[in-house]
Amino acid sequence: MISFESDYITGAHPAILEALSRTNLEPASGYGTDRWCESAAAKILAACGLSDKEGAVEFISGGTQTNAVVIASLLKDYEGVLAAETGHVSQHEAGAIEYTGHEVLTLPGHAGKVDAAEAAAYIEKFYGDESHEHMVFPGMIYISHPTEYGTLYTLAELTALHEVCAKYRIPLYLDGARLGYGLMSRSADVTLADIARLTDVFYIGGTKVGALIGEAVVFTKNNRPAHFMHSMKKRGALLAKGRVLGIQFDTLFSDGLYEEIGRHGIEKAEKLKDILAEAGFSFFIDSPTNQQFPILPDKTLNYLRASGVAVSFWEKYDETHTVVRLAACWSTTDEDLDALKKILAEAPA
Amino acid sequence: MISFESDYITGAHPAILEALSRTNLEPASGYGTDRWCESAAAKILAACGLSDKEGAVEFISGGTQTNAVVIASLLKDYEGVLAAETGHVSQHEAGAIEYTGHEVLTLPGHAGKVDAAEAAAYIEKFYGDESHEHMVFPGMIYISHPTEYGTLYTLAELTALHEVCAKYRIPLYLDGARLGYGLMSRSADVTLADIARLTDVFYIGGTKVGALIGEAVVFTKNNRPAHFMHSMKKRGALLAKGRVLGIQFDTLFSDGLYEEIGRHGIEKAEKLKDILAEAGFSFFIDSPTNQQFPILPDKTLNYLRASGVAVSFWEKYDETHTVVRLAACWSTTDEDLDALKKILAEAPA
Amino acid sequence: MISFESDYITGAHPAILEALSRTNLEPASGYGTDRWCESAAAKILAACGLSDKEGAVEFISGGTQTNAVVIASLLKDYEGVLAAETGHVSQHEAGAIEYTGHEVLTLPGHAGKVDAAEAAAYIEKFYGDESHEHMVFPGMIYISHPTEYGTLYTLAELTALHEVCAKYRIPLYLDGARLGYGLMSRSADVTLADIARLTDVFYIGGTKVGALIGEAVVFTKNNRPAHFMHSMKKRGALLAKGRVLGIQFDTLFSDGLYEEIGRHGIEKAEKLKDILAEAGFSFFIDSPTNQQFPILPDKTLNYLRASGVAVSFWEKYDETHTVVRLAACWSTTDEDLDALKKILAEAPA
Amino acid sequence: MISFESDYITGAHPAILEALSRTNLEPASGYGTDRWCESAAAKILAACGLSDKEGAVEFISGGTQTNAVVIASLLKDYEGVLAAETGHVSQHEAGAIEYTGHEVLTLPGHAGKVDAAEAAAYIEKFYGDESHEHMVFPGMIYISHPTEYGTLYTLAELTALHEVCAKYRIPLYLDGARLGYGLMSRSADVTLADIARLTDVFYIGGTKVGALIGEAVVFTKNNRPAHFMHSMKKRGALLAKGRVLGIQFDTLFSDGLYEEIGRHGIEKAEKLKDILAEAGFSFFIDSPTNQQFPILPDKTLNYLRASGVAVSFWEKYDETHTVVRLAACWSTTDEDLDALKKILAEAPA
Repeated sequence: MISFESDYITGAHPAILEALSRTNLEPASGYGTDRWCESAAAKILAACGLSDKEGAVEFISGGTQTNAVVIASLLKDYEGVLAAETGHVSQHEAGAIEYTGHEVLTLPGHAGKVDAAEAAAYIEKFYGDESHEHMVFPGMIYISHPTEYGTLYTLAELTALHEVCAKYRIPLYLDGARLGYGLMSRSADVTLADIARLTDVFYIGGTKVGALIGEAVVFTKNNRPAHFMHSMKKRGALLAKGRVLGIQFDTLFSDGLYEEIGRHGIEKAEKLKDILAEAGFSFFIDSPTNQQFPILPDKTLNYLRASGVAVSFWEKYDETHTVVRLAACWSTTDEDLDALKKILAEAPA
Repeated sequence: MISFESDYITGAHPAILEALSRTNLEPASGYGTDRWCESAAAKILAACGLSDKEGAVEFISGGTQTNAVVIASLLKDYEGVLAAETGHVSQHEAGAIEYTGHEVLTLPGHAGKVDAAEAAAYIEKFYGDESHEHMVFPGMIYISHPTEYGTLYTLAELTALHEVCAKYRIPLYLDGARLGYGLMSRSADVTLADIARLTDVFYIGGTKVGALIGEAVVFTKNNRPAHFMHSMKKRGALLAKGRVLGIQFDTLFSDGLYEEIGRHGIEKAEKLKDILAEAGFSFFIDSPTNQQFPILPDKTLNYLRASGVAVSFWEKYDETHTVVRLAACWSTTDEDLDALKKILAEAPA
Repeated sequence: MISFESDYITGAHPAILEALSRTNLEPASGYGTDRWCESAAAKILAACGLSDKEGAVEFISGGTQTNAVVIASLLKDYEGVLAAETGHVSQHEAGAIEYTGHEVLTLPGHAGKVDAAEAAAYIEKFYGDESHEHMVFPGMIYISHPTEYGTLYTLAELTALHEVCAKYRIPLYLDGARLGYGLMSRSADVTLADIARLTDVFYIGGTKVGALIGEAVVFTKNNRPAHFMHSMKKRGALLAKGRVLGIQFDTLFSDGLYEEIGRHGIEKAEKLKDILAEAGFSFFIDSPTNQQFPILPDKTLNYLRASGVAVSFWEKYDETHTVVRLAACWSTTDEDLDALKKILAEAPA
Repeated sequence: MISFESDYITGAHPAILEALSRTNLEPASGYGTDRWCESAAAKILAACGLSDKEGAVEFISGGTQTNAVVIASLLKDYEGVLAAETGHVSQHEAGAIEYTGHEVLTLPGHAGKVDAAEAAAYIEKFYGDESHEHMVFPGMIYISHPTEYGTLYTLAELTALHEVCAKYRIPLYLDGARLGYGLMSRSADVTLADIARLTDVFYIGGTKVGALIGEAVVFTKNNRPAHFMHSMKKRGALLAKGRVLGIQFDTLFSDGLYEEIGRHGIEKAEKLKDILAEAGFSFFIDSPTNQQFPILPDKTLNYLRASGVAVSFWEKYDETHTVVRLAACWSTTDEDLDALKKILAEAPA
C-alpha cells in the first residue's frame, strides 16, 4: 500500500524514536515539569526570537485539544472566536469549541484564509448593532497557517490581521498544525519570528511534522493564562508523561530537524504536484505546501484505490469528479512518488 | 537521582519502543482505524473473555481524559457519578468531571474504596426524598482498582457493587489506571475476566503500566455509546495517530507482557515495603500493590530528598511527620532499591 | 412616548392581571405542580388536538431559556441543531445554545425561513462525507414561526420540513415566541393543530402575546425527556412560583383570549403597515404578522425618535437609510397609530 | 387547605399587584433598561449604603439562576466555590453550578453555616498541597443568610468570613433568598448595610419575600463583571420584560415594604414556633427566622396532611418521626395559625 492519505500516516522521525530510546530509563517528574520540556521550551523560544519574559511554551497531545484549551482559556465569558468558515475549528473538530461554551463566529474563507478587512468589518458592524449585548462578542481571531487548503498568509496579510487584533485588543491565534511545511514552502513569506511577533499565541505542530504526537503552544506576549496547567488538566489535556512531549520537541528543535522535516515534505509535495499536473489533472486550489488537492475523475480515483493507493476524499466536484487530498510528509519517499506516477500512467483513460 | 516519585517516571517498556520502531514506516489510517488498534482490541477482548458482540475497546491518551469522556457520554442529563471522596475524579482531576456538566456525588472512602451498602443506602435515600427532582440523580458508580491508596476490591466487594448497580440499572465504571499491578498483587482476588463480567465499563491503564501513553477503555455489555468516536473528538480525546496507542496495547497484550510488567512492579513494591518496614517506619495504609505510603519523620524526608531520592508528598501526618508515596513500576530495579536501603541506613536518627 | 419598539413594551393583558389578583391568596405547591399549571396544560393540549398520552406541556419564563433547555435536553452528545442563519438561536441569544455544548449549524435564511430541500441536502451531504464523525451531526431542525422577519411557513413548507425530519429521525422544533400573531395573520395557512401534528416540540409564546412572562413548551409525540423538571432546574429554568406561569396560560387559553390577542395585534399591524406605505416607505421584507420592517431615511428616523416615537434599529440599509422594526401587539391602540401617522405627516421631507 | 409548605405558596404582596396594574400600559424598553429597574436599583443602593460607583444592581427571575450566573461569571477557569455541604448550591439546585463547569467544594455545615476558621483551614491546606494545580482552586465562599436551616450569621461571623476572603482575595457571596426575614428576625445582628460592606456580592430575595418572582443581585465593590447583561442572556437569565422585576423591586424598596413583609413573616413564624412547642414537639434546629423545623411523629404528620395542612418533608428523623418544615411568609394569617393550633389539639396522641 502506498499512502498519501495524510501527513500522519507513519510513526515518528527516526531521530525522535532514537531520543525516546536513549532517554527511556532516565527518571523524571510528571506533567511537563521534566528537564526535556524545559529544554525544548527554551529552544523554541530562541527559535521564535522571544525572551523568557515575553514567551511561554506548553505542550499538548493533539491539535483539537490544543485549540479547545487555548481558545477556552483566553476567551472571556461573553466572547466567541472568529474563524474562516472552512477553518478546522469551524468544521472538523466535532464541536469541540462549542463544547467549551463558546461560539465559533464564521467569516468567509478565501482559499482557507481570513481576510483582515472582512474581520474588521465584522467587528465594526458588531459594535454598531444597538443590541449587541445579545450577540456573541468577537473576542479572538483564529487562523491556520498553512490553512486546511494548504495556502499561506503573506507577511502583509498577517500584519493586517495583527493590526485588526491590536486595534480591537483581541488576541490573534495561529493554528500551526502543519507549520513546518508552511515555513519551508518556496512561497513562504513569513518566518517563525514573524509569527511570534505578529500573533498573540500560536502552536507549532508536531503530530503532522515528524513527531509521534504533540503540539507546542507558544504564548508570545507575556500572556499565558494564570494556572494554565490547571486549565489543561481540567480538559484532559495534561499528559502524565509530559516527557514524551518534551523529548520530541527537544529533538525537533535541535540541529535544525524541524526545518529539515519541513523541507523534505515540501520537496516531495512539489514532485507530487508535478506528477499530478503531468497526468493531466487540474487542481481545486493552488497549494504551495505539503497538501495537494487534485480533481480526479471518479474512475481514476477508483483505479487508484484499487491499486493500493490511499488518498483522502475532500469533496465531490461534480457528478463524475471528486476533489481528493494527497499529502506529503517527512516520511514520503521517491519510491512512493514513482509508484504513484506509474499507476497513474497505467490508469484507463 | 533515584526516583520512586510515581509509576510514570520513565519512558516505556523496551518491547514497546521496539514495536514502535519496527512499525514506524508502515503507513496507516488515522484516528484509531489502523490494523494495530484492531488487533489490540481483539487481544484485549480475548483476555477479558468478552465476545465481539459484548465488548468494544477504545483507546485514549490519558486517565483524566478517559474518565471525563466515559462518564460524560454515559450519564444522562440529570445524573451525576457516585465516587469515594478520595477518588481520583473527586479530588485530583481539576474538576474535569464537573467541566462536563455533571456532579461527582461523594461517598465515604474506606481505604479508598466505596462500600456497596453505603452506595445502596445513598441511592435509597435519594429516591426517598420528596424533592429529589431538585437533586442530582445517582447515575453511575465510579471505583478505582487499585484505588488511589493502592488497595484492592475483593471479589465479594466487587460483586456487591455490581448487584447494587444492576438493581438500580446504573453502570459500574472501574478506573484501572494501575490495573496491571492490581491483577498481579499477591492479594488479588479478582481477575480481568471478573472485572469484565462485573463492571459495565472499565479501563486498562497503559501510562502507569509500561506504555508511553494510553489507556484502553472496555465496554463490556454491548453498551458503547453511539458515535463514541465523535464524543472523543469533541473532548479532544481522539488521537490523530491512533496507531501510537494501538501498537502499544497490541504489544502489551502479546506474550503476556502486561502481566509480566504487573508482576515486576509488585515484586519490587514488596521489596520496597520490606525496606521501609525494616527501617522502622509505619504505614499510613496497608497497600498490597505498587504504591506504598510510609509515614516519615520530616527530617528523614528531607534527608532522602537531599540524597537525591524522589518521593511524592501525600499529606502532612502531624507536626513532624509526613505521609509520602513511593511507587514501584516496570522500570524499578534492585539497584534502586538497594540504594534506597543504603541511604535510609545512613539517615540520621 | 409612543412605542412600537417591540411586542414586550407593556405589562400584561388585563385579564391576566385580574386572574393573578383573583388567585393571589390561594396557596399552592411550587415548581409547576399547582392546579393552574395542570389546568393550563389540559387546555393547551385540547387546543392542539393532542391527547394526554401524546402531549405534555411545560412552562418556562422566557424564550432563550426555553430554546436552551429544549434543545440541550433533546440533542444527543454528537448532535447540533440546524437553523436559519438569521434564526434567533443563531444570532441573538448570546451563544446560549453553544453554552449547552452544542453547535448551531446554519442554513441559508429565506426571509427568515429554512428551506426543506436545503435542509435535506445538508443532511445528505453530511452523511456522504467520509469523515463525518469529526463533524457535528445534524440532530434537530429549529424554525421560528413567525420568523424573526415576521414571515410564516405555509402548510406545504411545514409538511416538507416534517418529512425531512421524519426521514432522518430527528425532531422538528418550532419556536413560537410570536405564535399568537402567526395564527391570526390573514396569511395564516397553518393551525395550532397542524403545528402539533407536524412538529415534535414547539412553544407557545406568552411574553410577546399578552403575558407578563412565560412560554408553554408542548411535546407532541410522547417525547418529553425523562426528568425534564430536573433538566429545567439544572439550567435555572424552573420557577419556584410556577403558579405565575400556570395562571397566565390558563387565562390565555380560556374564552379564546390567546386568539383575541393575536387578532388584535394583527389588525393594528395591518393599519401600521398601511400608514408606513402611505407615507411612502418601502419595506425590507413583506411581513404578514405583527412586526413591520420599513426602510426609513435616517433623517426620518431621527425625527421620529426626537418626536418621542420608539422603534427598533434593525440594520443599516445604505449610507442614508436604516431598516427599523415596528411591532404591534395586544396593547397597541388606534391612538398610537394615529399619533404616528400625524408625526410622519409632519416629518420634513 | 392551610399551607405552611413554603414561603412561595401564594402570589405577591397586594402592593406589588397594584403597582403592576398601575404601570401596565406604560411602554418601556426591554431587558432591564426601563425606568423602574433604574429606580429600584437606586433605592436598593441607598438602602445598602452604597454609592453609584461602588454598587451595581441586576435583576434575575429566580434563585438557582441567580446563583449559577453570579458564580459562573465571577469564578476563574481554575476555581470552584466553597459552600456548606447543606448549602442550596451543594444539594438542591440539580447540579446547576457544576453545569457551569465549576465544582462546589464542600465545607462542614454548622446548622447550615460555614465556619470562617474551617474555610481558612481548607484554603491553607489547599495551597500547602504540592500538587494543587490538579485540584480545584477555592475561588469564592458562598453562604446563605438565613441559611437553608433558618439560621443567621452574627456580625462577628460575617466579619470573620469577610476577612478570610479578603486575605485570600476571593469574593464572599451571600445568597439572600430569604434575606427579608433574616433582617427582621429578633436575633438579627446584621443589617443590610453590614452585608453590603462585608460581602462582595449578594442577592436580595424577592420570590420568597412578597414578589411574584425575582431576585436583586447587588455587586458591592465596583466589581460587576464586564458585559454582565450578556452573561445573563447566555444563561437564559435575562428577562425580556425586565419591567416586571423592576416594578416589583421598586415597590418592595418604597415606603419600607420589604421590611414590613419581613417583620410580618417573623411575627407569624414566632407564633408558629410557639404553637408547635406548646403542642409538645421538639425542633430539629432552633431557627430564629421564618422557617421552622419540628420533629413530628409520623402519625401526627399523616393526621396533619389528612386534615388539609400542607408542610414540607425535610428528612426522616428516626423510624417513627420525621423532620418537617413549616414556613411563614408575608401572606401567613392568624387564621392559618389558629386553624393549625386547633388541628394539632385534635390530633390523636
